[in-house]
Amino acid sequence: MAAFPEVSKIRYEGPDSRNPLAFRHYNPDELVEGKPMKEHFRFSVAFWHTMRGTGADPFGAPTMIRPWDTGENTIENAINRVKAFFEFCEKLGAPFFCFHDRDVAPEGKTLAETNKNLDAVVKVIKEEMDRTGVKLLWGTANLFSNPRYVHGAATSCNADAFAYAAAQVKKALEVTKELGGAGYVFWGGREGYQSFWNTDMKRELDNLARFLHMAVDYAKEIGFTGQFYIEPKPKEPTKHQYDFDAAACINFLRTYGLEKYFKLNIETNHATLAGHNVEHELEYAGMQGFLGSVDANTGDLLLGWDTDQFPTDVYLTTKIMLVFLKYGGIAPGGVNFDAKVRRESFEPIDLFYAHIGGMDCFAKGLKVAAAIRADGELARLLKERYSSWDTGIGAEIEAGKHNFKTLEKYMLEKGDVSPNKSGRQELFENIVNRYIF
Amino acid sequence: MAAFPEVSKIRYEGPDSRNPLAFRHYNPDELVEGKPMKEHFRFSVAFWHTMRGTGADPFGAPTMIRPWDTGENTIENAINRVKAFFEFCEKLGAPFFCFHDRDVAPEGKTLAETNKNLDAVVKVIKEEMDRTGVKLLWGTANLFSNPRYVHGAATSCNADAFAYAAAQVKKALEVTKELGGAGYVFWGGREGYQSFWNTDMKRELDNLARFLHMAVDYAKEIGFTGQFYIEPKPKEPTKHQYDFDAAACINFLRTYGLEKYFKLNIETNHATLAGHNVEHELEYAGMQGFLGSVDANTGDLLLGWDTDQFPTDVYLTTKIMLVFLKYGGIAPGGVNFDAKVRRESFEPIDLFYAHIGGMDCFAKGLKVAAAIRADGELARLLKERYSSWDTGIGAEIEAGKHNFKTLEKYMLEKGDVSPNKSGRQELFENIVNRYIF
Amino acid sequence: MAAFPEVSKIRYEGPDSRNPLAFRHYNPDELVEGKPMKEHFRFSVAFWHTMRGTGADPFGAPTMIRPWDTGENTIENAINRVKAFFEFCEKLGAPFFCFHDRDVAPEGKTLAETNKNLDAVVKVIKEEMDRTGVKLLWGTANLFSNPRYVHGAATSCNADAFAYAAAQVKKALEVTKELGGAGYVFWGGREGYQSFWNTDMKRELDNLARFLHMAVDYAKEIGFTGQFYIEPKPKEPTKHQYDFDAAACINFLRTYGLEKYFKLNIETNHATLAGHNVEHELEYAGMQGFLGSVDANTGDLLLGWDTDQFPTDVYLTTKIMLVFLKYGGIAPGGVNFDAKVRRESFEPIDLFYAHIGGMDCFAKGLKVAAAIRADGELARLLKERYSSWDTGIGAEIEAGKHNFKTLEKYMLEKGDVSPNKSGRQELFENIVNRYIF
Amino acid sequence: MAAFPEVSKIRYEGPDSRNPLAFRHYNPDELVEGKPMKEHFRFSVAFWHTMRGTGADPFGAPTMIRPWDTGENTIENAINRVKAFFEFCEKLGAPFFCFHDRDVAPEGKTLAETNKNLDAVVKVIKEEMDRTGVKLLWGTANLFSNPRYVHGAATSCNADAFAYAAAQVKKALEVTKELGGAGYVFWGGREGYQSFWNTDMKRELDNLARFLHMAVDYAKEIGFTGQFYIEPKPKEPTKHQYDFDAAACINFLRTYGLEKYFKLNIETNHATLAGHNVEHELEYAGMQGFLGSVDANTGDLLLGWDTDQFPTDVYLTTKIMLVFLKYGGIAPGGVNFDAKVRRESFEPIDLFYAHIGGMDCFAKGLKVAAAIRADGELARLLKERYSSWDTGIGAEIEAGKHNFKTLEKYMLEKGDVSPNKSGRQELFENIVNRYIF
Ligand SMILES: [Co+2]
Ligand SMILES: [Co+2]
Ligand SMILES: [Co+2]
Ligand SMILES: [Co+2]
Ligand SMILES: [Co+2]
Ligand SMILES: [Co+2]
Ligand SMILES: [Co+2]
Ligand SMILES: [Co+2]
Repeated sequence: MAAFPEVSKIRYEGPDSRNPLAFRHYNPDELVEGKPMKEHFRFSVAFWHTMRGTGADPFGAPTMIRPWDTGENTIENAINRVKAFFEFCEKLGAPFFCFHDRDVAPEGKTLAETNKNLDAVVKVIKEEMDRTGVKLLWGTANLFSNPRYVHGAATSCNADAFAYAAAQVKKALEVTKELGGAGYVFWGGREGYQSFWNTDMKRELDNLARFLHMAVDYAKEIGFTGQFYIEPKPKEPTKHQYDFDAAACINFLRTYGLEKYFKLNIETNHATLAGHNVEHELEYAGMQGFLGSVDANTGDLLLGWDTDQFPTDVYLTTKIMLVFLKYGGIAPGGVNFDAKVRRESFEPIDLFYAHIGGMDCFAKGLKVAAAIRADGELARLLKERYSSWDTGIGAEIEAGKHNFKTLEKYMLEKGDVSPNKSGRQELFENIVNRYIF
Repeated sequence: MAAFPEVSKIRYEGPDSRNPLAFRHYNPDELVEGKPMKEHFRFSVAFWHTMRGTGADPFGAPTMIRPWDTGENTIENAINRVKAFFEFCEKLGAPFFCFHDRDVAPEGKTLAETNKNLDAVVKVIKEEMDRTGVKLLWGTANLFSNPRYVHGAATSCNADAFAYAAAQVKKALEVTKELGGAGYVFWGGREGYQSFWNTDMKRELDNLARFLHMAVDYAKEIGFTGQFYIEPKPKEPTKHQYDFDAAACINFLRTYGLEKYFKLNIETNHATLAGHNVEHELEYAGMQGFLGSVDANTGDLLLGWDTDQFPTDVYLTTKIMLVFLKYGGIAPGGVNFDAKVRRESFEPIDLFYAHIGGMDCFAKGLKVAAAIRADGELARLLKERYSSWDTGIGAEIEAGKHNFKTLEKYMLEKGDVSPNKSGRQELFENIVNRYIF
Repeated sequence: MAAFPEVSKIRYEGPDSRNPLAFRHYNPDELVEGKPMKEHFRFSVAFWHTMRGTGADPFGAPTMIRPWDTGENTIENAINRVKAFFEFCEKLGAPFFCFHDRDVAPEGKTLAETNKNLDAVVKVIKEEMDRTGVKLLWGTANLFSNPRYVHGAATSCNADAFAYAAAQVKKALEVTKELGGAGYVFWGGREGYQSFWNTDMKRELDNLARFLHMAVDYAKEIGFTGQFYIEPKPKEPTKHQYDFDAAACINFLRTYGLEKYFKLNIETNHATLAGHNVEHELEYAGMQGFLGSVDANTGDLLLGWDTDQFPTDVYLTTKIMLVFLKYGGIAPGGVNFDAKVRRESFEPIDLFYAHIGGMDCFAKGLKVAAAIRADGELARLLKERYSSWDTGIGAEIEAGKHNFKTLEKYMLEKGDVSPNKSGRQELFENIVNRYIF
Repeated sequence: MAAFPEVSKIRYEGPDSRNPLAFRHYNPDELVEGKPMKEHFRFSVAFWHTMRGTGADPFGAPTMIRPWDTGENTIENAINRVKAFFEFCEKLGAPFFCFHDRDVAPEGKTLAETNKNLDAVVKVIKEEMDRTGVKLLWGTANLFSNPRYVHGAATSCNADAFAYAAAQVKKALEVTKELGGAGYVFWGGREGYQSFWNTDMKRELDNLARFLHMAVDYAKEIGFTGQFYIEPKPKEPTKHQYDFDAAACINFLRTYGLEKYFKLNIETNHATLAGHNVEHELEYAGMQGFLGSVDANTGDLLLGWDTDQFPTDVYLTTKIMLVFLKYGGIAPGGVNFDAKVRRESFEPIDLFYAHIGGMDCFAKGLKVAAAIRADGELARLLKERYSSWDTGIGAEIEAGKHNFKTLEKYMLEKGDVSPNKSGRQELFENIVNRYIF
């Protein structure tokens, strides 16, 4: 029995289509800069939001209508969800998915039983992957929902929480490998603090590093060669998360000798909660070699929590795609919709509207980004802006030929700097709009 | 002629004093944890705010009444300011001061003339330092006010701005050395961007690192052995500053091989603008060996700009002093009041009220912090909270005896974690209040 | 069987007590400004947080250990909760409580059944009130948790939601009257919007006003004479709530002719989410005659959501108590702890620590506020600051004797204003600290 | 001598133009919904930003290159600025302008001299208006820059400041009338507080109301029939401004009997600083009859101060234009660019780029808004969403036929509400994108 009987395969119908269940811009095999769209994005559906999002919020009960889900905590119900999920991915035409261990299978009374439950469901996932061709972008373990992680997982004051988390990630790595996952993500939802008074930050961070080293070691041992990612987020649920932003993550990796093994999974709404635009975080990661994957969504900048909304702003997707194109693509990462339909959008069909809108907005962003690059005017203006560094004193400085004394001599002779030129921010913004409207 | 004729030396009069021009808690030679108060703080007055703050804001003209200052851009006026400043420091009893090159002496028509102006004023500063015994906590160069730095200094798209900044810092280092400065600060007010569209972040950061390496080299060459500091700030005046917060600064230092030469100068209001409480930034810096110095002030957390208000909240100063005591003090750094009287507090006497209030609040914070430590209850609760790491599986993990496989085995046998205990945040907060009221 | 067997009646032991289960400042019958402390505060315990708070958050499952609560949705379990609650209030010495209809009794399959359930539990509440002497500060109806209110209650696009809410408030008013409640609160958690695109704001506000008029009418009909309150909150769970802040609420009341019937229930954390300090909201309400009651808590100003933390900052409570004293007290309102123990503070005893800390902090705040008033120095400085309005041109203006023409004449003759005097913010802050440390 | 010799009249060249000094969408006489574009917008240039913006910020000196401006505080220089300004407006094709009294003419030593200066310059303004046909959208008085207003103008603790402000507004009203201004704006930049401790909010608000009543009276007396506006802003330069947002302004007007005489001048960046999207503020004002005029700009939502950037986001302008179309246009108000080029965009030509970009973005927004309305799909979905209010119980309620008792009866019989339908936020957003890309 189909979960979405009223929906057939979503097709590309072109910009003028008024069919809300069609793509207007996402045309998977259309070449952009010589590469099919689908390879630019490697779109992924998030199991947690799409299948396990209930619509509950801190002030309200679940609202989502999900006819395929009885709400029971059984393997059977879990399998029904998996089937609905792959039906969704297939109809949507998403080539990838992502999941947490606890999204897909119920916890048992013991760890052993929980692992058994997971195995049972993973078997079906594998079948569905084979059947549909949908691949695993990355796997991860949920180390934040269960009360045992109330004080953190790897950073808990309870050493047993660390141990349990170790066992859980071990299993999750095995499962990710089994499913051919291209990567594995760590999001440290509880790795931070609520109260500075009761926290030993140094000890917690040492333990977090220890934990990640164990993960690296175990991946080597079992031959898991997917990419490891850390996902920055500054706060929520904790008052302060250790993986605050890209800089905090990279500094942490460098401090503890982990920088070779991890890249970052950047999320728009997490970037803005940390005070950065997402293009900053992407470029910051990119220029240091840590650009890994993207959790695509958007936030409401007038709200102080992670709304995980679907991205529908073409300015946003244009900026993201410009970074992708600059760095030669995001693979083995991808664009994972870590986004949820609103609590008020509780019907199954809303899941389609939401993903279609996001994919289309990314597709249009890619087209705009490619047009900007093909045209070259922005690049030319940018190069011109820094041209003083390409010859003369600038080139000499960059070539390492100067020091404070030679530069003082140069400037004492010159008296003052050659005139600055306007930064032309408004012109840059106007030019960008040329490709949008 | 005295600048503050109506004020005599500020004295300690004890907690019950109602004299607004006396200290109620700051008693310089009183021992706390065996060290005189004055050594705990190493209080410093900021020349820029105290002497050059005009009360202008983006919507209004200067308001400050400063009878000793004619407003003229002359050496003579500059010297009058210096004398007023040292009279202030002496009467206040502040053992240190800080300054930018451009705070103390006017710019000339050429760099050469500007340097000459600086020399003329520095001579008087030195005399005043000798006369009063007030010392230089740190020097710095203003690389942000002059329009030549409109696009940045070390990170400007105009290579000449880099060269000019190099010459300026060279001179500032020489002057700082000459005045026996205990440190030198880099605050990159314009080292960031207003518009992501017109910015080559990688090239700018490469140049920033190049610049700092030149500074380190030159300091070695002239034998300047003071401590170098970077001062994090996330934004303002730029939309995004590269030295966003402690993590961004340390990551930058590590990326470019500068980590041995720099510590951080942490400012309360900059920390909060970046989304961190200042105690977080201090501890973060401290645990990684980058705790350098403090710019003491406070912000208004409902406002999104740097208000640089004087700190008068004893909870804040208690938290700061706990970090100082934990790390054995802040020297060669100190507590520099990077704080300004409000535009509405435009009379000279307000400068005294403001600094006295700040110093007293820090003194009370120190007493509270010392009482917390002497009592030991908070420390005991904290130790207890992490006790699972001191024996058994926790101790084994910290000793490096475990990996994912042994931990899985441990947990499969145990089934689930030993029960967590309450984090007791409310109790911690109540206990802190015991020492405050 | 006692819910808190290990706790006996919390007693006042004085400032030096180290007993975490004693008051150090809250001494109910101690007179401050001639009135017993308990009458100044009229402390109230919130049934929802204290009995129904689970510790769940958007990323994690419930954590709270509540031995008296089986988790079942039965009348019996509901009654057990009521008994635990009154044991708590009695041991704490809280004279009041507040509750939502759905906090205390389970919903049934129909409205009729739900009402019956409520009656059954209210009967026990009444017995417990009689037994303990604990009174009802205010009642309210939960019009936000049930999915039927997904689009709002009085402002829903579904007219049936309005009707259901009407029925629910009717019953809640009856129950509040029956229990002798001193007031009734409307918090419009879902009365706002998530998306401006799909919202007819005018129609929704018209309906909200219609709803409140019906409530006023029905209260008259049944002779309920308690005070009605609206509780401002700017957002969360909605993206934008209509009752944004005090100004929005009062403007709404005036627009729809409701201003005679409602006062405001001001909450600290809601005020700050709206960009105001709570003392602003209290004074703003007070000066317009809308100061009603207080939901006491505090937020974390670096977080963008309602943390509802227990207030432990004496600066905060001092400011609140100054407003209370200025306006002659808050009755028939009170200080209701709309505050929850942290998710990590999951043991029953934490409920005591939390409330004791809050009550003590308010008690100290009252003492500080009373000392400030007794001393009179702040009041004297304030009066002096506005003294130009007490004589001469200022007094004439306030007496209505001037217009633009006479004032122009006055100023043309005078040429410019008499000099301004410093606003002395720093001195004010220092003086406040005299009463704190 | 021309101020902008290199620029000729800006022309409409259509969407494909690559000329940065041409309009791609703004085509003044093109009809949209039967009205010429120019009448939809009534674009206005702000004298203060365009002619008096220096590029100074709290951390840096002026940067703007303005060859026509000697920087001298003379009438001659003032007149040169006026001529440059009208050349700008004429070449840009802006039909309106706005100004503060102090923007255009220098202050003299006395109020009398200042008024004389103003008269001298106003004479030239009038000539230029006649010459060019550019009209005055609104005038205003600068009551915030001069140190005499350090504590406020109408709300100052210094009664003389009130008197001076009265004289100043009297004159500004006369000048506005003389120039045929369509309106007059009050922006209370200093009407608020920095410190709650030293503020008597009630007395200050009473005086503010008194001041506005005097303005109303004087306008009647001189026959000025232009529209009065209040411009909401929540903070900056003060910590808290009384005219916080639309709700605070309207509540103030109602409290003091001023509601008949004032509408609101809504600014995008002020709205967001207050926690509202601008479309909220516009609609809120509109539905209550207070929609007056618009200060067009945009802010950076990651920054906490008023950046007054030029609007270049078509989503923003679409939302604004939808409100305009809904309420039948904004006249006698208009779209005034209260926006400034960045400090880094210091060349005269940037003024053109900036205004052209803003006007084009509004023009495109108008086209999108009109297309949305012509298509009708969004309106149809919205109507459908509220359809339960158009018949049956909903219609009865809106017709005033119900009360709590009849609604309880209805719901007791029905048992529960008719099912809610999805709010379809994602679909709404996707449909909007149809008209944008
Ligand atoms: Co994510
Ligand atoms: Co997220
Ligand atoms: Co600083
Ligand atoms: Co600062
Ligand atoms: Co509340
Ligand atoms: Co709350
Ligand atoms: Co404006
Ligand atoms: Co503005």
